[in-house]
Amino acid sequence: MQTNKNYDNLEQSYLFSTIARKVREYSEAHPEADIIRLGIGDVTRPLVPAVIDALHAAVEDQAKQETFHGYGDEQGYGFLHEALVGYYKSHGVELATNEIFISDGAKSDLGNILDIFGTDNTVLVPDPVYPVYVDTNVMAGRKIVFADANEANGFLPLPDESVECDIIYICSPNNPTGAAYDRAGLKAWVDYANKQNAVILYDAAYECFIEDETLPRSIYEIEGAKSCAIEFCSFSKMAGFTGTRCGWTVVPTALLDGKLNKMWLRRQTTKFNGVPYIVQKGAAACFTEEGMKQIKETLGYYKQNAKVLAATLDELGIWYTGGKSSPYLWLKCPNGMDSWTFFDYLLENANVVGTPGAGFGKNGDGFFRLTAFGDQARTKEAAERLKKLLQK
Amino acid sequence: MQTNKNYDNLEQSYLFSTIARKVREYSEAHPEADIIRLGIGDVTRPLVPAVIDALHAAVEDQAKQETFHGYGDEQGYGFLHEALVGYYKSHGVELATNEIFISDGAKSDLGNILDIFGTDNTVLVPDPVYPVYVDTNVMAGRKIVFADANEANGFLPLPDESVECDIIYICSPNNPTGAAYDRAGLKAWVDYANKQNAVILYDAAYECFIEDETLPRSIYEIEGAKSCAIEFCSFSKMAGFTGTRCGWTVVPTALLDGKLNKMWLRRQTTKFNGVPYIVQKGAAACFTEEGMKQIKETLGYYKQNAKVLAATLDELGIWYTGGKSSPYLWLKCPNGMDSWTFFDYLLENANVVGTPGAGFGKNGDGFFRLTAFGDQARTKEAAERLKKLLQK
Repeated sequence: MQTNKNYDNLEQSYLFSTIARKVREYSEAHPEADIIRLGIGDVTRPLVPAVIDALHAAVEDQAKQETFHGYGDEQGYGFLHEALVGYYKSHGVELATNEIFISDGAKSDLGNILDIFGTDNTVLVPDPVYPVYVDTNVMAGRKIVFADANEANGFLPLPDESVECDIIYICSPNNPTGAAYDRAGLKAWVDYANKQNAVILYDAAYECFIEDETLPRSIYEIEGAKSCAIEFCSFSKMAGFTGTRCGWTVVPTALLDGKLNKMWLRRQTTKFNGVPYIVQKGAAACFTEEGMKQIKETLGYYKQNAKVLAATLDELGIWYTGGKSSPYLWLKCPNGMDSWTFFDYLLENANVVGTPGAGFGKNGDGFFRLTAFGDQARTKEAAERLKKLLQK
Repeated sequence: MQTNKNYDNLEQSYLFSTIARKVREYSEAHPEADIIRLGIGDVTRPLVPAVIDALHAAVEDQAKQETFHGYGDEQGYGFLHEALVGYYKSHGVELATNEIFISDGAKSDLGNILDIFGTDNTVLVPDPVYPVYVDTNVMAGRKIVFADANEANGFLPLPDESVECDIIYICSPNNPTGAAYDRAGLKAWVDYANKQNAVILYDAAYECFIEDETLPRSIYEIEGAKSCAIEFCSFSKMAGFTGTRCGWTVVPTALLDGKLNKMWLRRQTTKFNGVPYIVQKGAAACFTEEGMKQIKETLGYYKQNAKVLAATLDELGIWYTGGKSSPYLWLKCPNGMDSWTFFDYLLENANVVGTPGAGFGKNGDGFFRLTAFGDQARTKEAAERLKKLLQK
């Protein structure tokens, strides 16, 4: 038996383990230090009451013979498809229920979707980037080319017509940079993809942070996107489902005359068995009037943190992206420090922990990620410490 | 962009859609007919109270800041690993917690595990078989060879030393045949796999139906298995989790000096984000004293159905496998009928629906699957009808 040799080409990431070690060592040496963590990419607020009520009710359904749910369709329940069709309609996108596949999260489907593409395809990935876009393609042995995201383009690279590729990753609002494409930017990518006969894998996991109504929340708001783009989204950040696990994937039937939709259905019915009934019921509750109001309150809590951090960086005159349509703030390390030097500097002098940009690709060096998922009072305290430390 | 060409080689299965159409047509033509479905492969009894209580408690955890759970480790929570270590210990198998990976079901992992193997590997699959073993390998373009399961070997084929292969599928107790390997049978496969440097993918999803203490419930009860076998199991049939979704996969560190365990961990941390906290809490409740007692009662309900059907076939002198350590009964169609002829005969003359064996592979033709997951009174009624119809 042969193992998959491509796995030998995967790079080990020591980003979060190195952060953990450095924080632990500092903490042991300075037991009195009151460390604030702004590196966390996970939500911290509990599920909202409407979701909790729906989860309890669904658990009760599973307790009774008459309402018990066994195997459901792999692609999810109709009630959740319909709720999502309504959600898309609210920002002007028309989808059919059979174009929506319920998933256990964007990460799973972003990896698994690659099953339906050939391994000879060339993949275009921005740098810096969420590491799984690269790793999932290394596992399949695909050729990867990078699009430079940098200070000059505001970490929103546009297509280079001279580059040929088959699969394009776009994450907007972006993790880690927080930068979000406007309509013109996305239109450029859609036109490029259609011209190249390429497919865009559009990661919209942070769309719920968009407040500016001129920014697209779905790639399907852009003309031509249905013939080139698959969209991945999630309840993780939208409704705090990081530990409750539900997302969705849109494969339009306009893509290759319906072929990709059929292939993905076949992939899912063969290698997946659907998301728990209980979880789908909880997810659907987000789209009730009460549920939507409640999840917006929680999002508002995080957005307030982002505003506090953004105002601090503005005041300090530090260049950054994100913070407005995103829970992430991606700042240029002051005084020309590299990412890890700034990490140590901030840990030692302000007892604040963030994430070095170098961990997300070579273009990330010299940059640093802060997140808005923490406690409000602690985030304010961290902002005060940043001001004190970095004021010129 | 190129699609994965291997998908063009997938065969469409019309098994369950054809059954549904035939039943619908018969029912429309005979609206008075009281049809009993013994073709169902899904559980029908609700979740047990201990699991329900644990699910409610976990939902409450998600409602409160102090007990909220966001991202967990992709491979699952320690509390569930430890419960499973205890479960294996109860049938004499010692596992380490890092050898157990919590999954959203055996089907997902049985498909996804193939990621870590090369596509040049040759796969050995019994015929008849659960169709996803074949389809997942067709998707990857692997060469497939078949092991003949038939009446002569009691649908429990033994290895043919002249056949070379790299990946071996064994499902015991088997779906669809209900046949279960004894220790000698499994030992032959383990020895063969170790000699060939092959890996066994052991699907133990029905182990909970084994009552005969001489039969192995885990492949790791067999000496040498830890150096050649990966075991997949599930709460689906054990505790009625078909719609609640939880399972586990064991990748022993003895396999290739730990390489496969590390590769699977990398695969899961890259393409999966773990099973819902709520669901893992529900699953763990199966291993409490109360939970185990309750799930055994539910299993007893199905086992009673299997006994009724087995006694009927015994009385009728019809050859069959399964029914003792399995919810499935795999019978030889009487009077030399082929599977579909017998399906129609049974539908028309007894208003009983089963599954034609031909749907599971060429060796399935002439055989027929009945299942024990139905209602007790209805199953008894079906048995009476079979007796009346088939009595010589």
